[in-house]
Amino acid sequence: MSLARPEERGTAAMLTRPRLHELDRQDPLAAVRERFALPEGVLYLDGNSLGPASKAMSGRIGEVVAVEWGGDLIRAWNRRGWFRLPERVGARIAPLLGLASDEVVAADSVSLNLFKLLSALLRRAADRRVVLAERSNFPTDLYIAEGLVGMLRDLASGEGPELRLVGAEEFLGSLGPDVAVATLTQVDFRTGRKRDLRRVTRAARDHGVPVVWDLSHSAGAFALDLRADGVEFAVGCGYKYLNGGPGAPGFLAVVRERQEELRPGLAGWMGHAEPFRFETGYRPGAGMRRFVTGTPPVLSMAALEEGLRVFESLDLGALRRKGEALGDLFIRLVDQRLSGFGVSVASPRRAAARGSQVSLRHGDGFAVMQALIARGVIGDFREPDLLRFGFAPLTVRYVDLWDAVEALRDVLASGEFREERHRRRAAVT
Amino acid sequence: MSLARPEERGTAAMLTRPRLHELDRQDPLAAVRERFALPEGVLYLDGNSLGPASKAMSGRIGEVVAVEWGGDLIRAWNRRGWFRLPERVGARIAPLLGLASDEVVAADSVSLNLFKLLSALLRRAADRRVVLAERSNFPTDLYIAEGLVGMLRDLASGEGPELRLVGAEEFLGSLGPDVAVATLTQVDFRTGRKRDLRRVTRAARDHGVPVVWDLSHSAGAFALDLRADGVEFAVGCGYKYLNGGPGAPGFLAVVRERQEELRPGLAGWMGHAEPFRFETGYRPGAGMRRFVTGTPPVLSMAALEEGLRVFESLDLGALRRKGEALGDLFIRLVDQRLSGFGVSVASPRRAAARGSQVSLRHGDGFAVMQALIARGVIGDFREPDLLRFGFAPLTVRYVDLWDAVEALRDVLASGEFREERHRRRAAVT
Repeated sequence: MSLARPEERGTAAMLTRPRLHELDRQDPLAAVRERFALPEGVLYLDGNSLGPASKAMSGRIGEVVAVEWGGDLIRAWNRRGWFRLPERVGARIAPLLGLASDEVVAADSVSLNLFKLLSALLRRAADRRVVLAERSNFPTDLYIAEGLVGMLRDLASGEGPELRLVGAEEFLGSLGPDVAVATLTQVDFRTGRKRDLRRVTRAARDHGVPVVWDLSHSAGAFALDLRADGVEFAVGCGYKYLNGGPGAPGFLAVVRERQEELRPGLAGWMGHAEPFRFETGYRPGAGMRRFVTGTPPVLSMAALEEGLRVFESLDLGALRRKGEALGDLFIRLVDQRLSGFGVSVASPRRAAARGSQVSLRHGDGFAVMQALIARGVIGDFREPDLLRFGFAPLTVRYVDLWDAVEALRDVLASGEFREERHRRRAAVT
Repeated sequence: MSLARPEERGTAAMLTRPRLHELDRQDPLAAVRERFALPEGVLYLDGNSLGPASKAMSGRIGEVVAVEWGGDLIRAWNRRGWFRLPERVGARIAPLLGLASDEVVAADSVSLNLFKLLSALLRRAADRRVVLAERSNFPTDLYIAEGLVGMLRDLASGEGPELRLVGAEEFLGSLGPDVAVATLTQVDFRTGRKRDLRRVTRAARDHGVPVVWDLSHSAGAFALDLRADGVEFAVGCGYKYLNGGPGAPGFLAVVRERQEELRPGLAGWMGHAEPFRFETGYRPGAGMRRFVTGTPPVLSMAALEEGLRVFESLDLGALRRKGEALGDLFIRLVDQRLSGFGVSVASPRRAAARGSQVSLRHGDGFAVMQALIARGVIGDFREPDLLRFGFAPLTVRYVDLWDAVEALRDVLASGEFREERHRRRAAVT
C-alpha cells in the first residue's frame, strides 16, 4: 500500500499531517466512514470499547419500535422473523470469522456464551478436570470460569473440577492430559497483544485440549479465518468493532462437526427443538439453536443486525491492512512527537502481533486520559497506567492519529493533566 | 365497584354492550390506556405474551440511540447512568412486587435469572439434593432446572442432584427434608390458575424449602406483596404486563436478608464488587449487584424502563380490581353468548384464583384462533385446545370483551374456522 513509498521506508522519515491526509484521500474504506453518525468535536478512539452508531441506526430502531413491535405486536415474531434473529445475526457475523452461516448465533452476552461452551466442553471431557486460563485474560472470562468451577466443586460430592490460572508464557507448557478445556482471548484488552490462533489451537489439540477463543477484540477489527486456523469454539462481543450498540448481544461459534456433541448447561425454551410444543423435557435444537436460551432482546438484537450491515460486501483485506497501518503510524508518531514526555509503547510494535489498538504507558495515565477526553479525544484508561487507543478501521482516519498525538503532546507539555490529577484526589478525599 | 349494582348480582343478569361501555366511562384506569400506541383495527388480548408499546416509547428509544449512544458514545455509561440500569429498572419493578427498591434488579432473561437462583440455593442447601418443580410449569423453567441438574450430575463424581417433577396436586405433599429448592410459577400460562403465594411459601418454609417464584404472568397484571407473603426469591418477565418490549430483560428479586448468602453460579464482570479494577478473582458485588452478569443490553433495558413509567403513581388496587372484573365479565359473556358452540371455560371462575387471563377450550382451538386473528381479535393458542385471552388492565377496555366474544361467536356460528383448519392441513401435507 501507499505507506511503502521510498521516502517512508526508513524509520527516520518524519510523518506530517498533510501526508496522513493524503492517506485518507487514498483510503478504500473512507466511504464507509460516511455511514457513521459521529458527533462533532470528538475524535473517537474508543470503538474497541463501544462502537459508534451508523446513520441508518436511528431509522431502523425506530421502525422496529413503531412498526414491528408497535404495529404488529405479537405477530411480529413470525411476520418480522424475530424467532430467527439469533441465526440471522449470526449469519452476518460468520463471514467476519471465516465460518459458514450456520456456525454462529448471536445470544445473551460474551460471559454467558463462554459459560455455555466451557460447561459443555467440560461435560464432554470425561475424566479430564482442569479448566485452563491465562491470568491476564479479560476478567469476566475468568469470573465465568471461576463461577462454573466453584459451583461444581460445591455441588459435586467428590472432587470437582479445577480452574488453573497461568501466566501467558506458561500457557503452552500447561497443556496436558488433565486439561479438559482452555480459554484464551486472542487480543489482550490491556496491551493489544494478539495471539496466533492457529499455532495455539494446534498445540492444544496435540494435547487433546479444545480451546474456546474470546474474539471480543478481534471480530470486525480484522478478518479472521477460524476454519483454516482449526478453531472450533469461539465467543465474542457485539458492541465493540461490530458496532451493535451498548450491551449488544454476544456471539457464539461452533464448527458444524462439533455442534451436536455439545450440551450447554444453560437450557432455555428458545433453544428447544420445538419450543411451541411446550414439552416437559428439553430436547436441544438442531445445530447452533441449542445455544440460544431465553427470549432474545429484540431491540438490542436488531441494533446489532443493523450495525453489521456496514460490513456487507466489505473488503476484509482492506480492513486488516488499514488496522495495521493505523497502529504502525500511531506508534511512529508517538516515537517522533512524544519522546521525553514519559510515555512508552505498551503494545507490540509488530503489526502482526497486535490487534487494532495501541496502548501507551504513563505514570499519570488516568489524569492524562481525563485531560485528553476534556479536549474531545476519547480513548480510555486501564489500571494501573495504560492509555488505550482503539483504531476501528471503519471510522478512524489517518489524520486522526496526528491530531490525537498532538493533543496528547499538548496535554503532557502543558502539564494540564496535573490539574485532573488534583481534581481526582479532591473528589476522592 | 360499579359491578355490584343490584340488577347485576344475579348470574342471570344479561350484560349488554352499552353497560360495558358505561364501565369504561367510569374506569379510573381509562386515561392510562391513552398512553399506549395501539394499532387501528386491532383488539389486542395478548398483552400477556407481549405488552404493547407506549406512545412515549419511540421518542425515548430514539433518544437513547441518537443522543446517548450516538452523541455521548462511551461516556454515556457514566453520563447517562447506564451502569446503574439494572438497579434503576429494578427499583421501578419493586413497588409492583411489594419489595424495596434494593431488592430487585433487571438482568438477562427469566430463564437465566432462574438458573442463578436455583444454583445459588442448591449450593446453600448442604445435603439436600432435590430440585422440586411442577410438571405443568412453564417449560423454560423446567428446562433450566433440567439443564442445571443434568450438568451437575454429569460433572459430579458421586451422586449429583435430582430434578423431581410432580403434578400440581402433589406439590405440597412432595416437600420434605431432601428438597433443596422448589420452583413454581404463580399464574399458570395455560389456564391462568393463580396460586396462593403466602400459603405455598409458608408450607414450603415449614419443610425448610425455599421457593423461587416465577412471576412472569403476575408482575404488572395485579399488585403483589411479596414481603407480606413471606416470598424471598422471585424471577419474572419484562415483556408481558410490564410492557418492556420484545425480549425485554427479566427481573430477579431477593429479599435483603437473603442477598449476601447467595453465590450464583453465573459470575460476570458486571456483578463484580469493582468491575473496573479488573481483578483476577471474583468478588460478588453488594446486594443485588451480584446477580448481574455480563454487560446489559442497554436499548432493551431502556425500553423496559420506559414501559415501567406508565406504572408510576398508579393505583395498584384499581389494577387488581379491573383485572378481576375483566375476567369475571368475560366469563359471564362466554356463558351468555357462546353456549352450544362447543366452548368451555378452562380458567378458574373465581377471580381470586385466576390471573389476568381467561382460557377457553375448543376442539378446533387453533383454527378458531386463526380465524379470530384474521378478524383483528388477537389472542393466542396453546396446545392442545386452548384459546388464551389476556386482559392487561392498562390497555383492555370493558367493551373489548363484548366485541371479542361477538367475534368469537361469529367465527363459531359461521364455521369460517373450518376453512382455517383445512388451510392448515393443506399447508402441512
